[in-house]
Amino acid sequence: MKASNMNILALSGGVGGAKLALGLAQVLAGEQLTIIANTADDFEHLGLAISPDLDTVMYTLAGLNNQDLGWGLAGESWHCMQALERLGGETWFRLGDKDLATHLYRSQRLLEGASLSEITQALTQRLAIKPTLLPMCDEPVRTQVKTAAGPLDFQRYFVGEQCRPEVSGFHFTGIEQTTLSTQIAQAIDGADALVVCPSNPFVSVAPILAVNGLKARLLAKPIARVVVSPIVGGMALKGPAAKMMRELAMPVTALAVAEYYRDFATHFVLDSSDSGYAAPIRELGMQVLVTNTVMKTLQDKQALAEAILTFSQQTAE
Amino acid sequence: MKASNMNILALSGGVGGAKLALGLAQVLAGEQLTIIANTADDFEHLGLAISPDLDTVMYTLAGLNNQDLGWGLAGESWHCMQALERLGGETWFRLGDKDLATHLYRSQRLLEGASLSEITQALTQRLAIKPTLLPMCDEPVRTQVKTAAGPLDFQRYFVGEQCRPEVSGFHFTGIEQTTLSTQIAQAIDGADALVVCPSNPFVSVAPILAVNGLKARLLAKPIARVVVSPIVGGMALKGPAAKMMRELAMPVTALAVAEYYRDFATHFVLDSSDSGYAAPIRELGMQVLVTNTVMKTLQDKQALAEAILTFSQQTAE
Repeated sequence: MKASNMNILALSGGVGGAKLALGLAQVLAGEQLTIIANTADDFEHLGLAISPDLDTVMYTLAGLNNQDLGWGLAGESWHCMQALERLGGETWFRLGDKDLATHLYRSQRLLEGASLSEITQALTQRLAIKPTLLPMCDEPVRTQVKTAAGPLDFQRYFVGEQCRPEVSGFHFTGIEQTTLSTQIAQAIDGADALVVCPSNPFVSVAPILAVNGLKARLLAKPIARVVVSPIVGGMALKGPAAKMMRELAMPVTALAVAEYYRDFATHFVLDSSDSGYAAPIRELGMQVLVTNTVMKTLQDKQALAEAILTFSQQTAE
Repeated sequence: MKASNMNILALSGGVGGAKLALGLAQVLAGEQLTIIANTADDFEHLGLAISPDLDTVMYTLAGLNNQDLGWGLAGESWHCMQALERLGGETWFRLGDKDLATHLYRSQRLLEGASLSEITQALTQRLAIKPTLLPMCDEPVRTQVKTAAGPLDFQRYFVGEQCRPEVSGFHFTGIEQTTLSTQIAQAIDGADALVVCPSNPFVSVAPILAVNGLKARLLAKPIARVVVSPIVGGMALKGPAAKMMRELAMPVTALAVAEYYRDFATHFVLDSSDSGYAAPIRELGMQVLVTNTVMKTLQDKQALAEAILTFSQQTAE
């Protein structure tokens, strides 16, 4: 099969994952790419249903994302938040005026009985996004971050506390009630390769793989499962992955990420700056690709996506 | 008692009522004035709890109201609505970016278990509003407008359909479950006069008076109950009151308004242009004040408020 003819299923959290999702969307036809986004950091705030990762991927694919902030919409205004501050309301989670429209739309349709999958489909259609974007499930799952000071709702930890509390583990409240959506089952069945985008292993990828039936269905298929390391040169390019690894007493290395995925990943992609880990990761039984994984430009994203497609067809010598 | 020392309880709907409420707020100390606002045109929209009349009074008392539009906030922006339109969301009820903050604040606090009275108190305090503003009750009441095409939720009728459907009656869903709040009971007990602001008799004032126990407690007090006609020269200055009267087969006159309130009002205020109705209204047993009731400027509002205070002390010769 030509790499450019493959059907790819990608798993993504927020910003870092969305970059590679955009790269994949650049090199694949819409019908070849399905992206499953984490919804375990969704929350209800100010009466609204907010899906940060889903929206980050959606805005990025639509070319509407705010590249300066790294989240939210480009050209955003903040009149509502300013007025809310004046009223003494909660402004720790910043919602731009345009971004609010997404949450209002979603909240209204959820109240009317639509599923998160249906709502996401309608939104991506309106925004002319060609790949299929799916929430990991339609049931609510909420990550609780275990800390010395007790459990914290994910957004409280992530935005409210700016990831300061030391982490000892995670709990995905509601995960037991999840079911594999028909769309995800079909996407898995039709996939020629799986790509785990460079997202946080603990709070972005783990909840997706914990959806009832999802991981088992993936493992039952003889396809490449390609994990792209979110750790580059001992750091996470975005977010708290490195800090979490330290607090969980893991070395902050691409190798440790590969070990974390040892029972799942068949292929592992690490940055050129980490090439020293290529040999030990091969010893874990994985195919290894060493390339530039730092996606600054659209060309970087596209180049990484193309390299991954080719790499996913590589089998053990 | 000097008119300027009186404790006044005012009932108000939206725009027209809010004008007189502002006039009263100009001539009375904060502790002398309590305003009860209609909440039967409240509704849930886009996941938010919206209280149009309460907010119109609040914004007007805070000097933040949009005088050009006649509703909402001055200096408003519409980025959220524009984005919502792009997403294919419901934009028939226009919510400005700043105004949204009020609904977000209210929705969040309602979800946390606060009452509408508590929330209104917090908001008016933040906006440095000195009179006491109270919702007519804390339980949800929702006006249904009976039309030939079936019942319509009030905001669907009022904003969505722009009052086009012919009206045959009204139903205040939830009114049976209402209870008189301690604050309203105390305000009634301490009032030296009641002022019914020039608001729609059917959909603004009637729901307030229908709150369990409210009208009876007012009628049990030997105070002036002053109604200001919302009909001037055969027209409503704002809103559908005149159209509703026609459709309910009532003459569109200040006299018909007085007849509507004949078992309730002791005092009636009508505009100079309607002075011909003074005599027949007196024959209903009411004291009558003929004065300018059209409030264009702040001075108009203040003058009408002062005239009403003096008038409320007038008793039958």
